Amino acid sequence: MAKKHKVSKESCVTMTELVLPNDTNTLNNLMGGRLMHWMDVVSAIAAQKHSNRIVVTASADNISFNNPIQLGDVVTLEAKVTRAFSSSMEVYVEVYAENIPSGTRFKSHSAFFTFVAVDQGGRPIDVPELKPETPEEQEFFEGALRRRQLRLVLAKRMQPEDATELKSIFETGV
Amino acid sequence: MAKKHKVSKESCVTMTELVLPNDTNTLNNLMGGRLMHWMDVVSAIAAQKHSNRIVVTASADNISFNNPIQLGDVVTLEAKVTRAFSSSMEVYVEVYAENIPSGTRFKSHSAFFTFVAVDQGGRPIDVPELKPETPEEQEFFEGALRRRQLRLVLAKRMQPEDATELKSIFETGV
Amino acid sequence: MAKKHKVSKESCVTMTELVLPNDTNTLNNLMGGRLMHWMDVVSAIAAQKHSNRIVVTASADNISFNNPIQLGDVVTLEAKVTRAFSSSMEVYVEVYAENIPSGTRFKSHSAFFTFVAVDQGGRPIDVPELKPETPEEQEFFEGALRRRQLRLVLAKRMQPEDATELKSIFETGV
Amino acid sequence: MAKKHKVSKESCVTMTELVLPNDTNTLNNLMGGRLMHWMDVVSAIAAQKHSNRIVVTASADNISFNNPIQLGDVVTLEAKVTRAFSSSMEVYVEVYAENIPSGTRFKSHSAFFTFVAVDQGGRPIDVPELKPETPEEQEFFEGALRRRQLRLVLAKRMQPEDATELKSIFETGV
Amino acid sequence: MAKKHKVSKESCVTMTELVLPNDTNTLNNLMGGRLMHWMDVVSAIAAQKHSNRIVVTASADNISFNNPIQLGDVVTLEAKVTRAFSSSMEVYVEVYAENIPSGTRFKSHSAFFTFVAVDQGGRPIDVPELKPETPEEQEFFEGALRRRQLRLVLAKRMQPEDATELKSIFETGV
Amino acid sequence: MAKKHKVSKESCVTMTELVLPNDTNTLNNLMGGRLMHWMDVVSAIAAQKHSNRIVVTASADNISFNNPIQLGDVVTLEAKVTRAFSSSMEVYVEVYAENIPSGTRFKSHSAFFTFVAVDQGGRPIDVPELKPETPEEQEFFEGALRRRQLRLVLAKRMQPEDATELKSIFETGV
Repeated sequence: MAKKHKVSKESCVTMTELVLPNDTNTLNNLMGGRLMHWMDVVSAIAAQKHSNRIVVTASADNISFNNPIQLGDVVTLEAKVTRAFSSSMEVYVEVYAENIPSGTRFKSHSAFFTFVAVDQGGRPIDVPELKPETPEEQEFFEGALRRRQLRLVLAKRMQPEDATELKSIFETGV
Repeated sequence: MAKKHKVSKESCVTMTELVLPNDTNTLNNLMGGRLMHWMDVVSAIAAQKHSNRIVVTASADNISFNNPIQLGDVVTLEAKVTRAFSSSMEVYVEVYAENIPSGTRFKSHSAFFTFVAVDQGGRPIDVPELKPETPEEQEFFEGALRRRQLRLVLAKRMQPEDATELKSIFETGV
Repeated sequence: MAKKHKVSKESCVTMTELVLPNDTNTLNNLMGGRLMHWMDVVSAIAAQKHSNRIVVTASADNISFNNPIQLGDVVTLEAKVTRAFSSSMEVYVEVYAENIPSGTRFKSHSAFFTFVAVDQGGRPIDVPELKPETPEEQEFFEGALRRRQLRLVLAKRMQPEDATELKSIFETGV
Repeated sequence: MAKKHKVSKESCVTMTELVLPNDTNTLNNLMGGRLMHWMDVVSAIAAQKHSNRIVVTASADNISFNNPIQLGDVVTLEAKVTRAFSSSMEVYVEVYAENIPSGTRFKSHSAFFTFVAVDQGGRPIDVPELKPETPEEQEFFEGALRRRQLRLVLAKRMQPEDATELKSIFETGV
Repeated sequence: MAKKHKVSKESCVTMTELVLPNDTNTLNNLMGGRLMHWMDVVSAIAAQKHSNRIVVTASADNISFNNPIQLGDVVTLEAKVTRAFSSSMEVYVEVYAENIPSGTRFKSHSAFFTFVAVDQGGRPIDVPELKPETPEEQEFFEGALRRRQLRLVLAKRMQPEDATELKSIFETGV
Repeated sequence: MAKKHKVSKESCVTMTELVLPNDTNTLNNLMGGRLMHWMDVVSAIAAQKHSNRIVVTASADNISFNNPIQLGDVVTLEAKVTRAFSSSMEVYVEVYAENIPSGTRFKSHSAFFTFVAVDQGGRPIDVPELKPETPEEQEFFEGALRRRQLRLVLAKRMQPEDATELKSIFETGV
């Protein structure tokens, strides 16, 4: 039988990409869409590792693009599962950009994606629970419920007045 | 001198893509990341048309992926600017998937992206205002302020208690 | 049962592409082969929409490349079926290139492609007739017969002396 | 100083491609547009070799797609210059498809492309003349004039009544 | 029944590639990995032609990259089988780089790859022997045994002391 | 001033790739050439991190492909610098393949690549020395000299009789 619980580090995955000409716009900056594509792939692998299943993307949360990433930069993406809800998993992904010749490295983005584990026929199937181990993982675990309500409200699948956890956003932040 | 106002239909753009094998996962469904990439490209073109400038992606709002899109399907993406804020523009993009031999067509996703217009040196530069013409465009225009506050709160660049428009989300929906 | 007649606007399809570095030659101009590939894809989708079938490219007519399209330009392709002959369809495709920051837009190319509708086993299968609705569509419809004879002569599948309609090209133009 | 004359075998070039999944449609056949892209690349290299210049595609003649090429097939393209006209060159390209495990090989297509040689500023520049050496090359050389007139007529840059050579097509074939 | 012997020229294959922006590093030189990919494809086609089978890469020998190949260069790869050992084949591949406008052409690399012929179930299957015809082919044929021992030693599948042929490398060179 | 010494873990880099349809042959196995391309990219990034310079591939050592990697597998590549010689660096790269739904994971390949650090004009430039820290790193460091001699002999840039370290391969293995 499959495990009932798993921990974040079992699903942790690192991906590295080199920014090539076709990934950039006419300012020689990495295009946002290409980065989202990489974030989706690395997050999907993390969700696969947690569930040992094929997974399909269910949602991508708000992503802010603050600092441009340049042609020739090395982009490192790190993803791990933060919480599981029956057949769905929330994944946190962090993106670092590094210009190696100049020695600069900065955290450029982070985001949450959710995935649903499916069987070969494409039907949702339950996954192990995620058991937080560190204070930081505990914080991700608890915030996951608020973010889940926000997604459901934004997708118009939950009434705002029922999003009891979400309302706390206005006191405690995301 | 450039125009001071523009209307939504001046920035409207339609993109069509055919789902090829490399766009799909092992269930033969379009991968979420590829679709986000296409959504970013079509939205960026809409923002370019509104501003007649090079644009860079500033943010992508929550996206829910409800219905799988299959290998061989035709994907149509339609984007238009909904509101401008000095150098930034909000773009609304709708995605339709069509299986032509079986005659099925459905609206699979919609999302908001924001872009910043920049000059050749990459510095933000003002864009024309967007003037809504129809009741639907008026609704998009008004909602843009709430969504902007939500983005700022989620990016931790605005205190939740200052997001006066956003609070109304709990009464009126997004 | 499937429709017996269809009109051009039922098959009309618009595709938008951004010219990226890998699409260009060492002069930073869009390569002719990449453009032909896009023209084939958009025309195939138009033929699919007319026939609700899988289609295979049967021929591409002469294409002249007059004006170079630049890196960063937005290319818009519009395709629609002009006439059907049992299992084959002629598609007309127009290509526009737009340099958005400089505000220039021009019609760069147009061409005719033909497609054959096939069943799952790859065998040709009949498609609905095309019924022209406007004077312009009527002109395309009538010219289709001459162009069909020209294709057959060029493919050495018709004797030039039998191409009765084609001979009129020397009086009336294509 | 550059040569005044060159022969066909100086520009002869062979390209080999393996048909991969992304090159195929849902019937697992090579898409017409992908093949046209390869034909353009190999022909451009032949024209480069003849002229020792950067070249841009000027036109692609009618192409008929008779026999489907399958996933996994090896496609061989052979191109050579057939005639030069001041700054432009006509290139003949033949396409062979081979299914190696089954031992089948067939000539699937042939076509004529024309290219213009340009200097670094993109301005047309004269190229060496092509001197036919064999009877087959002589035939290509002579037919080139008729095909040139056909292209000009089809591009509406020559009146049909002035295409004196072209008229002979109705007696002698292309 | 299949042939018992084949000669090198039956498996000879030529591939031509144009170096495009996405193939290059930030110095505008062709990346080594892209070139290895092309070498693998052309060598696999040569092995397919010798065996009329599906083939899988078994090994790539040492490759030295001496001279940078530039963006816009034409790369020609020529491959042929040098010897067969039951189900495996050694292929020799030569790479030429050509900058056509400047008229420079040089042999940039050469390497040996080995492939195993497999049936539809992926099991190794015997291939025809290679019969050398020229002195150069004879030399390749004889050296193949030494190189095979070197591969086995490097893969730790043969003890160095058993590599009787390989030891001669220290007298006669590779 | 730049550091004089660096340790292996400063250059360690992990890359993760998902095997997509276009990466595979007709048996649905990852093609050797695609894997070599990934190995080159991840190794180049390791060499960049060690040298803080642009790097160019100098050589790829023998690679054996033992176990097929399947469509849908996750491929993890780990690279680190093992030794530096004035302007060149040897990089060791290990490849793991994982079929997540079935829970299998195996080390599929390993190889050594060498890179040369260059300045903006493409001229070789010195890099920090590599200081081994663990017994395993010490072993890699010492073996690097033998492998360097083997590369030079194979590239015919060193006489076999001068390769004093290499001869020990026949006693101690690579």
